[in-house]
Amino acid sequence: MAAHMTPDEFRAYGHQVVDWVADYWATLEQRPVLPSDPPGTVAGKLPARAPVAGEGVDAILKDLDEVVLPGVTHWQHPGFFAYFPANTSGPSVLGDLVSSGLGVQGMLWATSPAATEVETVVLDWLVGLLGLPERFLSTGAGGGVIQDSASSATLVATLAALHRASGGEWRSAGVRRRFTAYTSTQGHSSIEKAARIAGIGDGQVRAVETDEACAMRPEALRAALAADVAAGCVPAIVVATIGTTSTTAVDPLPAIAEICREYGVWLHVDAAYAGSAAVCPELRWSHAGVEFADSYCFDPHKWLLTGFDCDAFWVADRAELVQALTVLPEYLRNAASDSGAVLDYRDWQVPLGRRFRALKLWFVLRWYGEEGLRAHIRSGVAAAQWFAERVRADERFEVVAPHPFSLVCFRLRSDDGDGADEQNAALLARANASGAAYLTHTRVHGRYALRLAVGSPRTEERHVAAAWELIAGLAGEPG
Amino acid sequence: MAAHMTPDEFRAYGHQVVDWVADYWATLEQRPVLPSDPPGTVAGKLPARAPVAGEGVDAILKDLDEVVLPGVTHWQHPGFFAYFPANTSGPSVLGDLVSSGLGVQGMLWATSPAATEVETVVLDWLVGLLGLPERFLSTGAGGGVIQDSASSATLVATLAALHRASGGEWRSAGVRRRFTAYTSTQGHSSIEKAARIAGIGDGQVRAVETDEACAMRPEALRAALAADVAAGCVPAIVVATIGTTSTTAVDPLPAIAEICREYGVWLHVDAAYAGSAAVCPELRWSHAGVEFADSYCFDPHKWLLTGFDCDAFWVADRAELVQALTVLPEYLRNAASDSGAVLDYRDWQVPLGRRFRALKLWFVLRWYGEEGLRAHIRSGVAAAQWFAERVRADERFEVVAPHPFSLVCFRLRSDDGDGADEQNAALLARANASGAAYLTHTRVHGRYALRLAVGSPRTEERHVAAAWELIAGLAGEPG
Repeated sequence: MAAHMTPDEFRAYGHQVVDWVADYWATLEQRPVLPSDPPGTVAGKLPARAPVAGEGVDAILKDLDEVVLPGVTHWQHPGFFAYFPANTSGPSVLGDLVSSGLGVQGMLWATSPAATEVETVVLDWLVGLLGLPERFLSTGAGGGVIQDSASSATLVATLAALHRASGGEWRSAGVRRRFTAYTSTQGHSSIEKAARIAGIGDGQVRAVETDEACAMRPEALRAALAADVAAGCVPAIVVATIGTTSTTAVDPLPAIAEICREYGVWLHVDAAYAGSAAVCPELRWSHAGVEFADSYCFDPHKWLLTGFDCDAFWVADRAELVQALTVLPEYLRNAASDSGAVLDYRDWQVPLGRRFRALKLWFVLRWYGEEGLRAHIRSGVAAAQWFAERVRADERFEVVAPHPFSLVCFRLRSDDGDGADEQNAALLARANASGAAYLTHTRVHGRYALRLAVGSPRTEERHVAAAWELIAGLAGEPG
Repeated sequence: MAAHMTPDEFRAYGHQVVDWVADYWATLEQRPVLPSDPPGTVAGKLPARAPVAGEGVDAILKDLDEVVLPGVTHWQHPGFFAYFPANTSGPSVLGDLVSSGLGVQGMLWATSPAATEVETVVLDWLVGLLGLPERFLSTGAGGGVIQDSASSATLVATLAALHRASGGEWRSAGVRRRFTAYTSTQGHSSIEKAARIAGIGDGQVRAVETDEACAMRPEALRAALAADVAAGCVPAIVVATIGTTSTTAVDPLPAIAEICREYGVWLHVDAAYAGSAAVCPELRWSHAGVEFADSYCFDPHKWLLTGFDCDAFWVADRAELVQALTVLPEYLRNAASDSGAVLDYRDWQVPLGRRFRALKLWFVLRWYGEEGLRAHIRSGVAAAQWFAERVRADERFEVVAPHPFSLVCFRLRSDDGDGADEQNAALLARANASGAAYLTHTRVHGRYALRLAVGSPRTEERHVAAAWELIAGLAGEPG
């Protein structure tokens, strides 16, 4: 027989690994945020073949410390300000641990009813928590589901949109017309990727012009739609963004929604990062018009303390989504599905299988409560506003985009075009080499800018203050 | 400030949750495998809104026991013989716990080098462990990656195949020709779903006839290809199966591969369940011809003791896959990617983000070693063969398909067509109502059959024996 780990062995080793995680979190600040070894360093320290005989947990944890950890970028570090946060939290890890232990595969309601029902309820909770429209509730015609990522949410929205735009012909016949998709020039790369995957072609994605604040110009959207219709294309989907990846710009949903209605086009709203902000009533202005969306998503795994992977995705009409995606072989038929009384989430996503991801979200929502989640978002927003003030108060720097959430885009001022970009890139490289902070970059109106995104539960005001001191110091003497 | 869980709180609660999992595993056998409550039972016991104030872990665990657990199907139960196993193990849960705690997002090499490098190495290990062709090694032109499921593996294989079949035009222009896909009538439903998602259309999937053993007939594949080419279609992909979902039939890869070469069609091999068997040299006959595949996948989360989600997917030419899927916005550019010296796994999959899933696989491969994994597979195969012998020895029953792995398909004999199907369905329902075992069904050559799949690390010979006693008893007196 194989040497399976007994429950009692698991108990002992499990305590050891929990302690490892607790110690890791407690000492994170002492580590550099970023590793510095060249490509191949970790791989070079691992053997070329799996072991023949089994090894002990101690040996594995030793290599975890000595081989793996030096090659890890510490996304949970209080000095992690790169990309968007991908924060996790104690309750999320506990919920995920329960999910790993249960090991259920909730592809159908029947394959583990609780996995489906907890997910449905928790997604309904989020509708209330974010002030989303009631049409997204599962108690009506809508409903929510957990996707692995906003990329996958955009893809399934695109598929449902194709199903609608083709009058159902697409499922069997495939893409037989020149469908088009629309997003702003600031839309996420996953929109282009979804169009490619869905067989529309990324050349059929229209990048709609934006305004000074990097938000979509509705009149430009209308012009693009009109031109495509005139050219014989079939507009399938518009993806509007609440909180773009580059600068967290907010597209004007009410005007966009009106145009979508006029053209009969599916409106998907991608709020991957900024959706979490809607737990705070004072930030819900960003979601004005979401009641007109056919689908909407945000990532609790970005800024709502729930570990990757957890994207929350809703549709206003779940029947359209299920029709687009369902395939029913004999071995998946069961009485509950046949009755129509249950939701089978396999028909809401690309993969068939699914783990019990709702548990981590359930643990997080219960541990923090509405109050705790609001406090977390508010602390991030306050820290970012404080940082933006420092940037504004220093004449060497400029803030280059509105910053309503917890991201600030800024740069060293300069009249020297390309030289200025290089100066800013050099500043970023020096700041990241410090090991104390990690920021990334973007381009705003064509010019290189630094991005500082706050979101880790471990990030306190002092860490943001230290990041500012670091950057201001590296920038040299005030000009 | 939000009430974040401190590392010391996490330490205490973490021990509690580890104990919960250990107790769950230790007492699993005392629970009925399947819940019996009607739809809505779990949801009806949960409040309609998230709590306003945070709650304690004790309150959450109380509801986990009282509300959630009664609605769970116990996939890790020793009496779980349904579908295919989705087994997990102690080392897998520990590895996943480390991954949750680290909370890294390994979309790019640069966003956490160790996440990419451990994955690459571990996938190379699996090539050796399963005796897969060297062309899949990352040290050559190929390489492996973890997908969430075999469905996603089939989808990305289809996309790479479309890229190839269109001469690259597909990325930008979309599906502009009548592409076709091929699998046997026994191919998994995810192939049809992938064709739909990719915009080929599920009506363009040819279900190729099978033989008595439910394996694809190569001459029927050749005929289908010839007919489509004559009709102006462009064959894009053939999906052959090692271990079909219904009966674990093995398609004749060498003959299929020759036809694919002749027609220049991408060959993807789906070994979702049976791939794990290849850790045993005596079962590698099932993989003859895999050296001709353009891509191949199997699910360690089915039968190799690694918790969902963990599908291992390889391509012979990684450049084709990356070209098909890459999209590069400014905010993801970095020096390591620009250098070409690293793998960025975001370009190997649908989503952008990715968790550090290689850790659970690494823990499993090290804890068990080759020897432990072989022993696990061999015990499942032996149990299934023992069960098949009992079925054969009982004249009331018949085995309805070859059973080289750990699945046995069988039925009550009867000359009465539809009545026999109903008798078998009733037998299945009674067996499952016992709470001691859970089996599912399929149709073989059009007739209803029961499926018994062995795979849980908790399933011992006595559990398989008990399942046989149960079924034999319920079938009534020997005829």
